[in-house]
Amino acid sequence: MANYPKPLNRLVTELGKLPGIGRQTAQRLAFHILSMPEDETEQLTQAITQAKKNMKFCSVCGNLTDSDPCAICTDTRRDQDVICVVEDSRDVIAMEKIKEYHGLYHVLQGAISPMKGIGPDDINLRSLIVRLQEKDVKELILATNPNIEGEATAMYIGKLVKPSGIKVSRIAHGIPVGGDLEYADEETLLKALEGRRSL
Amino acid sequence: MANYPKPLNRLVTELGKLPGIGRQTAQRLAFHILSMPEDETEQLTQAITQAKKNMKFCSVCGNLTDSDPCAICTDTRRDQDVICVVEDSRDVIAMEKIKEYHGLYHVLQGAISPMKGIGPDDINLRSLIVRLQEKDVKELILATNPNIEGEATAMYIGKLVKPSGIKVSRIAHGIPVGGDLEYADEETLLKALEGRRSL
Repeated sequence: MANYPKPLNRLVTELGKLPGIGRQTAQRLAFHILSMPEDETEQLTQAITQAKKNMKFCSVCGNLTDSDPCAICTDTRRDQDVICVVEDSRDVIAMEKIKEYHGLYHVLQGAISPMKGIGPDDINLRSLIVRLQEKDVKELILATNPNIEGEATAMYIGKLVKPSGIKVSRIAHGIPVGGDLEYADEETLLKALEGRRSL
Repeated sequence: MANYPKPLNRLVTELGKLPGIGRQTAQRLAFHILSMPEDETEQLTQAITQAKKNMKFCSVCGNLTDSDPCAICTDTRRDQDVICVVEDSRDVIAMEKIKEYHGLYHVLQGAISPMKGIGPDDINLRSLIVRLQEKDVKELILATNPNIEGEATAMYIGKLVKPSGIKVSRIAHGIPVGGDLEYADEETLLKALEGRRSL
């Protein structure tokens, strides 16, 4: 827009680069930011800078953390012989929410995707193998996403680890709780059927 | 969430303070920001800081600007004898988009609202009166919002200015173009009827 003063235009552009923030929302946010007291905008920019500076990947499990090793890896009350493999730090948060899993994690920071040119060496996999060799791990739970990349990654890790005798499992896929059979896609329905358990 | 590292938690909290950004969206944005290259996050924080620092209110019309007086006030090609009164800088942008208005603006930076304890002295009104006294203004177009506060503000300014002999007009309210009579609320329909023009 020609009539936007430059600093405002720049702010709208930068905000519009964030995911899910369109031009309209970016404008609304920009005007809101301009109307905020200066110390509040400072808190916002500080939070961005500080998070960027202090958050790093845990050298053990690859999770996002502000202390290395992360709070989960150093928590001795957790089961040290179970590792849940996920693609992303957000998946750790999702798993922690159910409050039923008390083992450790390994965050791959991605998934194997030949289409995108991402191979086993491009994700945080080597450190998992080292962990499995050095620690006495009894079970490896593969909780990568139920899509092509996630399945390929789970298959790859499964094949890699199985010969070592460690129990390897994959989380169940099926109809979500509260979901409707009628509206489930065929792939999900097939998984649900395959994963049926005797009552 | 107990398992969020502090810097991440702080970032989510700060982002969540922005309008229309819920906890989920704030989380998504925070993780995206953490995954951005450092120079991109710097561009974002710089854009916020610079906009905050360089954007000010035009001393003539009260519009948000990076130069004082603003680009509209200093544009001699615009009609100097028509002033459109709006509540907000965003309204100026909306008006400019139609590309049909070539006069000046006056941004009130709010509206009179006894409910919220905002009186005539709390909005950018005094400088409008000064403008009307000092400049040769022929028409004042009241384009405040069609709600209680906007109407009250328009009425107040109308009464204040009318004795000076300046033509005062109010933008039309009615069924929006492409709108449906059936779904129009009664208030809008009433305004549309009242504002009918002979063909």
